[in-house]
Amino acid sequence: MTVRTTEDPPDPPGAQHAPSRPTLAVIAAEAGVSQATVSKVLNGRTDVAAATRERVEALLRDHNYPGPGGSRRARRSGLIDLVLAGLDSPWAVEILRGVEAECAEQGTGVVVSLVREDDARPPSWQNLPALHHSDGVILVTSRMTDRQRAQLERAGVALVLVDPVNLPDSDIASVGATNWAGGLAATEHLIELGHRRIAMIGGPGDMLCTQARVDGYRTALERAGIEVDRGLVRYGDFHHEGGFARTRELLALPDRPTAIFAGSDQQAMGAYQAARLAGLRVPEDLSVVGFDDLPTCEWLSPPLTTVRQPLEEMGRVAARTLLQLLDGRPPLTPRVELATELRVRASTAPPAPSEQ
Amino acid sequence: MTVRTTEDPPDPPGAQHAPSRPTLAVIAAEAGVSQATVSKVLNGRTDVAAATRERVEALLRDHNYPGPGGSRRARRSGLIDLVLAGLDSPWAVEILRGVEAECAEQGTGVVVSLVREDDARPPSWQNLPALHHSDGVILVTSRMTDRQRAQLERAGVALVLVDPVNLPDSDIASVGATNWAGGLAATEHLIELGHRRIAMIGGPGDMLCTQARVDGYRTALERAGIEVDRGLVRYGDFHHEGGFARTRELLALPDRPTAIFAGSDQQAMGAYQAARLAGLRVPEDLSVVGFDDLPTCEWLSPPLTTVRQPLEEMGRVAARTLLQLLDGRPPLTPRVELATELRVRASTAPPAPSEQ
Repeated sequence: MTVRTTEDPPDPPGAQHAPSRPTLAVIAAEAGVSQATVSKVLNGRTDVAAATRERVEALLRDHNYPGPGGSRRARRSGLIDLVLAGLDSPWAVEILRGVEAECAEQGTGVVVSLVREDDARPPSWQNLPALHHSDGVILVTSRMTDRQRAQLERAGVALVLVDPVNLPDSDIASVGATNWAGGLAATEHLIELGHRRIAMIGGPGDMLCTQARVDGYRTALERAGIEVDRGLVRYGDFHHEGGFARTRELLALPDRPTAIFAGSDQQAMGAYQAARLAGLRVPEDLSVVGFDDLPTCEWLSPPLTTVRQPLEEMGRVAARTLLQLLDGRPPLTPRVELATELRVRASTAPPAPSEQ
Repeated sequence: MTVRTTEDPPDPPGAQHAPSRPTLAVIAAEAGVSQATVSKVLNGRTDVAAATRERVEALLRDHNYPGPGGSRRARRSGLIDLVLAGLDSPWAVEILRGVEAECAEQGTGVVVSLVREDDARPPSWQNLPALHHSDGVILVTSRMTDRQRAQLERAGVALVLVDPVNLPDSDIASVGATNWAGGLAATEHLIELGHRRIAMIGGPGDMLCTQARVDGYRTALERAGIEVDRGLVRYGDFHHEGGFARTRELLALPDRPTAIFAGSDQQAMGAYQAARLAGLRVPEDLSVVGFDDLPTCEWLSPPLTTVRQPLEEMGRVAARTLLQLLDGRPPLTPRVELATELRVRASTAPPAPSEQ
């Protein structure tokens, strides 16, 4: 059964009324606050003054309200929804692995779906919790509109984001990696090897994680007194094809780079291929650094130097945060970033003497 | 709510009785058949005589029974469980992608879990449907005991297997690929290139798919009049490490093979690495064929010749079969094998003249 937290919005599919429970309007009137504030308390948000929170929580308890303020947000179904932007990368399976492991330990099932935006079948992702009677959503590398967020909030669905494309509101719980530090470390490694013409291939330019990595790259160059050449920064999708196409462009430049920092391991594999077709050896003629540290990295020829993202741990933390929200315990800070770490393998070396 | 199809076994966790419904024993007595036969009809099994099935189905309808014979097995929750042996391979995500796509189109959620065998938390996989109130299970590359199967049957849970390790009963619906034909095609390709010393690295020796591929390999050699050298057939896990370790052993033989047919693309990547460390070039000194055709194959250096398994389609067919079972429509044949296909890329070539 889906428990409602307000009465005015239209019913999401599958929702049922809990007839004997007071509306948010009643609670709000008794507490002398707005309905929005009651809703914030119910959803475990952190932007409510402590005194107000306590007053609202006491009323919710009095009315035996099932939200987190009431006592615990009931784990109604023992299910959560994991909604992914795509399943076309081993990246996604690493996140899934962490979410599944944490949820299995806590006796919670994970319903896995892809983001779909249209309103017909298959249903839009924000309708899935109502459809599956699940208690919350982990949304991975996706864009969220204010409307979607409001819809989830009305339905009393808890939400955690992993690597969000955008952050519509600063108080939503989200989990990521230290992308800026990763971009910095990768670039500093190449600078220390003696490279000066260092290119970067980012993911899509509108993604937060891309922006943070590019900023880390720029800062490393600036700290080393190397001027940032805008022509050496390219954007593309995170897949093999993106890395291949962008590397072909970079290697065709009159003054080609001697090193490439790719935004994902799959892009780095595309860069390997482009180098091979151009008759260049990795790392003798071209150094390549990836991002992610997928299990396959150490099996590439040569094994790939890359920035490790703790993907499985990110999945675990996202699941733990969501389950804590459902227990009425909001996270200490809404945004958590887990540490990235450079893994040096065999795809990076000093530039050839003629290039220096 | 979990609907029960019999009353005698102990309750699975989360199960609730549907009190007004007759027991299987009553139906069986009225139909003049055994309880086991009623259970078979309920579970959509094919090994019941048509006249008997019709008689039982009519009684089930009379009693408003919710099984597939009754009219439709109610899609109680709109959820199915997808249980995987592991999430440590991109292989699994391809199956998941197909299951998710098919289920999304049919408005069904997919709860993803790993096989766990212990009875404590996390719960054993065969308890998941009761826990999640799901209608059925797709079990991937796993072993199933008769006890587990009986437990699912008692709980009225429909079941489809993908690439089962063993087949405990021939009437369970299962989906696989034409592994034998794939083993044959891979080996014939190497023979046509002129190879005679062809090694094979299988997956675990007790898996059905391994046995079928090894048999295809043997048949190809025998048809070409090449004696099968048992020392050239090795078994290992399907991961990089397995391919690496077995290739090291094979390349250390006094009369080493000139070609290796690996049981998975990940094994083939391990073989690449072992060849590189031995100072051998692929394909000039060693030809390598993989199995699966993961998206990464065409991005390896050199791009990998492999046997394509239609993994996403296998996931789709498994989901479709399960949803049909839930609608009371058993599959025409319990076992379906989708076609494999050889994809020739750049990792295979004639053996070096000195080796011929």
